[in-house]
Amino acid sequence: MTNRMRASVHRFTMKDPSDVSQLARAIESGLINPACIIAFIGKTEGNGLVNDFTRGYLVQSLVLLLAPLRAQSADDVLGSVAFVFSGGTEGVLSPHYSVFCVEPSHSSGPASQVISARNTTGNGDTTPRKRLAIGRALTRVPLPEEIGTRAQAMLVADAVALAMTEAGLESLDDVHFVQVKGGCVTTEAAREATARGVRLASSDPNRSMTLSRVAGAFGVMQALGEITADAWDESFFLQRADLWSSRASVSSGIEVGMNEVVVFGNSDRWDSDFVIAHHTMEDAVDIGAVYACLESLDMHCRGDNHAACLQQIACALVKCEPDARGQVRGQRHTMWQDGDLNAQRHIRGAVGGLVASVLGDTRIFVSGGAEHQGPPGGGLLALIARTR
Amino acid sequence: MTNRMRASVHRFTMKDPSDVSQLARAIESGLINPACIIAFIGKTEGNGLVNDFTRGYLVQSLVLLLAPLRAQSADDVLGSVAFVFSGGTEGVLSPHYSVFCVEPSHSSGPASQVISARNTTGNGDTTPRKRLAIGRALTRVPLPEEIGTRAQAMLVADAVALAMTEAGLESLDDVHFVQVKGGCVTTEAAREATARGVRLASSDPNRSMTLSRVAGAFGVMQALGEITADAWDESFFLQRADLWSSRASVSSGIEVGMNEVVVFGNSDRWDSDFVIAHHTMEDAVDIGAVYACLESLDMHCRGDNHAACLQQIACALVKCEPDARGQVRGQRHTMWQDGDLNAQRHIRGAVGGLVASVLGDTRIFVSGGAEHQGPPGGGLLALIARTR
Amino acid sequence: MTNRMRASVHRFTMKDPSDVSQLARAIESGLINPACIIAFIGKTEGNGLVNDFTRGYLVQSLVLLLAPLRAQSADDVLGSVAFVFSGGTEGVLSPHYSVFCVEPSHSSGPASQVISARNTTGNGDTTPRKRLAIGRALTRVPLPEEIGTRAQAMLVADAVALAMTEAGLESLDDVHFVQVKGGCVTTEAAREATARGVRLASSDPNRSMTLSRVAGAFGVMQALGEITADAWDESFFLQRADLWSSRASVSSGIEVGMNEVVVFGNSDRWDSDFVIAHHTMEDAVDIGAVYACLESLDMHCRGDNHAACLQQIACALVKCEPDARGQVRGQRHTMWQDGDLNAQRHIRGAVGGLVASVLGDTRIFVSGGAEHQGPPGGGLLALIARTR
Amino acid sequence: MTNRMRASVHRFTMKDPSDVSQLARAIESGLINPACIIAFIGKTEGNGLVNDFTRGYLVQSLVLLLAPLRAQSADDVLGSVAFVFSGGTEGVLSPHYSVFCVEPSHSSGPASQVISARNTTGNGDTTPRKRLAIGRALTRVPLPEEIGTRAQAMLVADAVALAMTEAGLESLDDVHFVQVKGGCVTTEAAREATARGVRLASSDPNRSMTLSRVAGAFGVMQALGEITADAWDESFFLQRADLWSSRASVSSGIEVGMNEVVVFGNSDRWDSDFVIAHHTMEDAVDIGAVYACLESLDMHCRGDNHAACLQQIACALVKCEPDARGQVRGQRHTMWQDGDLNAQRHIRGAVGGLVASVLGDTRIFVSGGAEHQGPPGGGLLALIARTR
Repeated sequence: MTNRMRASVHRFTMKDPSDVSQLARAIESGLINPACIIAFIGKTEGNGLVNDFTRGYLVQSLVLLLAPLRAQSADDVLGSVAFVFSGGTEGVLSPHYSVFCVEPSHSSGPASQVISARNTTGNGDTTPRKRLAIGRALTRVPLPEEIGTRAQAMLVADAVALAMTEAGLESLDDVHFVQVKGGCVTTEAAREATARGVRLASSDPNRSMTLSRVAGAFGVMQALGEITADAWDESFFLQRADLWSSRASVSSGIEVGMNEVVVFGNSDRWDSDFVIAHHTMEDAVDIGAVYACLESLDMHCRGDNHAACLQQIACALVKCEPDARGQVRGQRHTMWQDGDLNAQRHIRGAVGGLVASVLGDTRIFVSGGAEHQGPPGGGLLALIARTR
Repeated sequence: MTNRMRASVHRFTMKDPSDVSQLARAIESGLINPACIIAFIGKTEGNGLVNDFTRGYLVQSLVLLLAPLRAQSADDVLGSVAFVFSGGTEGVLSPHYSVFCVEPSHSSGPASQVISARNTTGNGDTTPRKRLAIGRALTRVPLPEEIGTRAQAMLVADAVALAMTEAGLESLDDVHFVQVKGGCVTTEAAREATARGVRLASSDPNRSMTLSRVAGAFGVMQALGEITADAWDESFFLQRADLWSSRASVSSGIEVGMNEVVVFGNSDRWDSDFVIAHHTMEDAVDIGAVYACLESLDMHCRGDNHAACLQQIACALVKCEPDARGQVRGQRHTMWQDGDLNAQRHIRGAVGGLVASVLGDTRIFVSGGAEHQGPPGGGLLALIARTR
Repeated sequence: MTNRMRASVHRFTMKDPSDVSQLARAIESGLINPACIIAFIGKTEGNGLVNDFTRGYLVQSLVLLLAPLRAQSADDVLGSVAFVFSGGTEGVLSPHYSVFCVEPSHSSGPASQVISARNTTGNGDTTPRKRLAIGRALTRVPLPEEIGTRAQAMLVADAVALAMTEAGLESLDDVHFVQVKGGCVTTEAAREATARGVRLASSDPNRSMTLSRVAGAFGVMQALGEITADAWDESFFLQRADLWSSRASVSSGIEVGMNEVVVFGNSDRWDSDFVIAHHTMEDAVDIGAVYACLESLDMHCRGDNHAACLQQIACALVKCEPDARGQVRGQRHTMWQDGDLNAQRHIRGAVGGLVASVLGDTRIFVSGGAEHQGPPGGGLLALIARTR
Repeated sequence: MTNRMRASVHRFTMKDPSDVSQLARAIESGLINPACIIAFIGKTEGNGLVNDFTRGYLVQSLVLLLAPLRAQSADDVLGSVAFVFSGGTEGVLSPHYSVFCVEPSHSSGPASQVISARNTTGNGDTTPRKRLAIGRALTRVPLPEEIGTRAQAMLVADAVALAMTEAGLESLDDVHFVQVKGGCVTTEAAREATARGVRLASSDPNRSMTLSRVAGAFGVMQALGEITADAWDESFFLQRADLWSSRASVSSGIEVGMNEVVVFGNSDRWDSDFVIAHHTMEDAVDIGAVYACLESLDMHCRGDNHAACLQQIACALVKCEPDARGQVRGQRHTMWQDGDLNAQRHIRGAVGGLVASVLGDTRIFVSGGAEHQGPPGGGLLALIARTR
């Protein structure tokens, strides 16, 4: 990567999962060049579980819009753009998607209004010129018997490395958020696989969604050097809660085959007004993590969600998890025992309420299922902000 | 009321809706005199809708515990103690109940460690000696055809006035929280009423729960002088969103017949370590309201839910509502259109996440269905705190 | 209509709401001429409520398939084919859709293997040569304020008459099934309409779905002479349970604008192997109605769902309703009081179980919300069968 | 067992899970002697999953009624009566419970109106004098780590043998229905067990409910000689679908500790008007099984649920299961992939609709979770009928 690149982030809302009208208008008005779009990350108003078809419906709708505008076939759009949608807009969350564009930078000088993007663990990122960098990569389509296994993790690890290279991110410390989307095993696929005589990690669709996320998290951990390849095996899955990535966000769903990886970081090879920061959430009520992440972006607004600086937030990405031990801050919660309402819907509603209340904005990407993607019962928060 | 009274508040959690073991131990150890209990307010882990029987199960379990200890029949316990339970512990919320006790004060001097309990509208309550005062009253059992009508509102208004007198609360400004619990019309009751030839406000059980809350809110408004009796009629119900009580919290459920009213305020005729404050929530992400309410209790901890002062919080009571206009802070929400997850479950999860995150405690009473109990899409927050 | 027409019915299943592969193969193999398709009726695996986007997803997927094959734009496909999808495959129901094709008949002689298609009320249809006739019509898009009103009913009535003319059905007795699909008012649309100052039949999306169905049912009743235009007004909606159509099946959903009407009957102007019969279901356990409908098609197989004759069934269409009085055969049911599971999901599961068990086939179109479309708590069954 | 015994069955409905008024009246009127009650089997209107507290609420309500009438403590009532409640009255199912009473017979002659109770596999039971026999037994409370293991199965096997002895059932062929109710592991219990360092079969509450049923089924199989103790181990659980009991019905729930076993059969040592028959259901639409079971009781009414003979049915007990292979009669079902509605709720609604429609009565005990309790995707039906 020799020339400076430029990333931009646009956020649009939807009336329903097929509503791509805001993007259409932004393209029509020249605000967005459709050829520069490399990724979507968004929330649709389904249940976020196996039978959530709102994700696939939005993908189909976006592909329908983009294929003629990019002069590509539908398959080529699917192969060249990452579509990462998480279902479930519980509580105050608003269905929306962020569009990530990358193009060559026309600017050569330094960015004018400099802010630092330190992550709160203090490890680096102090160069003021670093700006948002994005890379992406796709794996091949895993076999049903690879879903939720080490094989899937290895595919993901390779894709993360590839995406980092594409983004020109050389230091692991510069990586702030790695989004992975992977498939799962439907009842149908499980039946066919069983007929072939192969063994699945799980034939239960919901459990295969979980294991697909876990495999993805181990893949990210390995790619980011948080764990080494020879230091883990599948027996760690869902057992070694002490092993987690500080920057992985993994979703799974029925509508995807291959694993899609998008890596976000800050780099001095990139040029724009955007920077990214992240912070670990220790538990599901960790309001301090949200304020600390804001403060690492030089935004100081504790207890005031009307503060002007919050207008600079371009994208909020959250991964969270109902504590498996059944407690939050020492008190019992009921998320895992509710037969009517899935635990992931519970936690998205609560953490969405928390983050939206701090930011004064309900367009938050909150994804449940943070197994090995943050401390037990906690998770990950990443914020992309304009520097001015 | 001539002698000074003393109120106390105890908060207990439950393993399931029949678990009254923590209260049993508190009575056994002498911490609580069962004869002094006048009210319970709590959250059970049901769905909070018509077929939520966790509320009734807890009532039955508490009555079973208390009847022998108070040397009363089950019916007499039900007639002399208010049981206000709201179903639904979505997200991080923890099933729990607060026990309110009243007994003659043995102290005669002023309270030692004085803090003020100002409500944030600034109207009054500046006498430093005012302490938590509680009164309660029950209405007769309304007929099915009275549920959700002006007749029910009038019953509630009379009960609020009675409860204020019992609490020795003379100034309306000293009232900070009025909890009302009322019944609803089951499919069964609707069928029987229709057979009698009477007209119901609604024969739909879920709608009758809504209208029962609305009637209760108008009753409180009238009792608190927020509206006059001749200034409203039933046509205002759910239409005049501009009319709301700043201190009403009304629940409804299948398990109660009569309306139960508990009034909370601060009075210099009462003596204890407890004070109460309240604040209006403007919308479902009004984090500023929670901090303002804390600050009216001299607790300053913006963005830090590990602050020591938060240990003084004894009880948190919240009423909230999915905005009927379909938006929060200008962005679309999906709460009213979710056929799988009732809108009240959505909003409790989100607002529970917000308040629990500010307080660092998940034992929050968050009740949905705040029609006419706060500005549209907003609600009411009340905090009871120890002064030291 | 001068030349004899020929109708055919094909039934396909889906792996998910976007799976149109079976139809694609049938077209590719020459079994179906895409230009002849006039209507789809099917079940998708959503919740069948306001936020069920599986219906729209399937429509979009079918249009994507058909537009190039019919050399039409997407809009023209939508304007020339009826897409009637009902969400909800509770219990044993299988996601599937029936494709209805109409083309000029190449045969001139009488049908070889004659069976009668009598409806069980005994009124007519004894001519042995009558064969399946289908007509369709679309209304304009109703305004939000017309949804659930007499205005919508009138639009539907006109469309039914038009569709009957298209089908060449002159006698009202020859009409056996009238499928209507209409729109509803979303929270968004309600807000916009309120801003325009107009009054809606209901601003609650779920209730607007109900009222849209009711208006459709009155439209059908009027078109079929079951009620006269001057004998009813909107005050009858949901009140006069004694007024119902014996042949109306009305669905509503967020994904459609205009009302789509498809009329099915038997006519000697049509030529094929297919006939249709219908029967009223008196309640939700009316197994006798299913057997009677089969027997009107000369299929005798009481208690034996492995009987060979059942292979002749090409399409089963059912409309049903949770009894509003809260009882089935004198015993209480809980469908209307379940806050977790919508009443329509309950009834579809139960009636689907009944009809699938009689027919030995789970590809049944079972649609809830049968207000005024059968006796209270009952509904309508129609069967299309091959004569050999 | 030397003297002839007499069993009787009474069926009551409920307005809510605490409504025991019909039983109270039956006792008051002398119809039922409370001292003779040995078991309850019934359906409550919860979700039938881990957080279904309607079962416990009904148990508490019945114990409250019976303790004074039987002059027993609450604990003694719990120890001497079996309470088997299954949550979930999906679709047309009506909340109800059957009361089983046993007392010494006063009659010495043969039963007057003789019918045979043959099971349809033809194996025995041809003695016309055999009448309903009931025995029950309780296990000790299993440890959390025993739930879902061979240890629990062995406890159940012993209890089944004990209950058969109590019932005087010597021939295994005379056993027609074995109801087992067992506990599960809550999140709380799992956390405590993990702290103790023991290994659980599963720490997921819903999965532990499944495994508790599986262990119970293997216990019954072993007791009935359907499998021998040395021919199986825990690795067969949920894997060897070909191994199933033809007469086991196992439920699990949060509200019980010990396993409760009730064995039903026909014996010539018993005397009453009641007989029992059972039949295997091959799949979820096996209408033939229901008619065959009726016919084994000499009731012939195919396709007519208004037949007079159906009045003789006193109790209908059904166990069923969503087919794990994702198909019913070769067509895809969606039960296992529905994130909003648990698979067991789906199947209960469908099979309840089927059986209620055949019998013309919605007071059916339909319990999901039939793992190893019938062929895959099928289940068990038992009918208790009066002989006249």
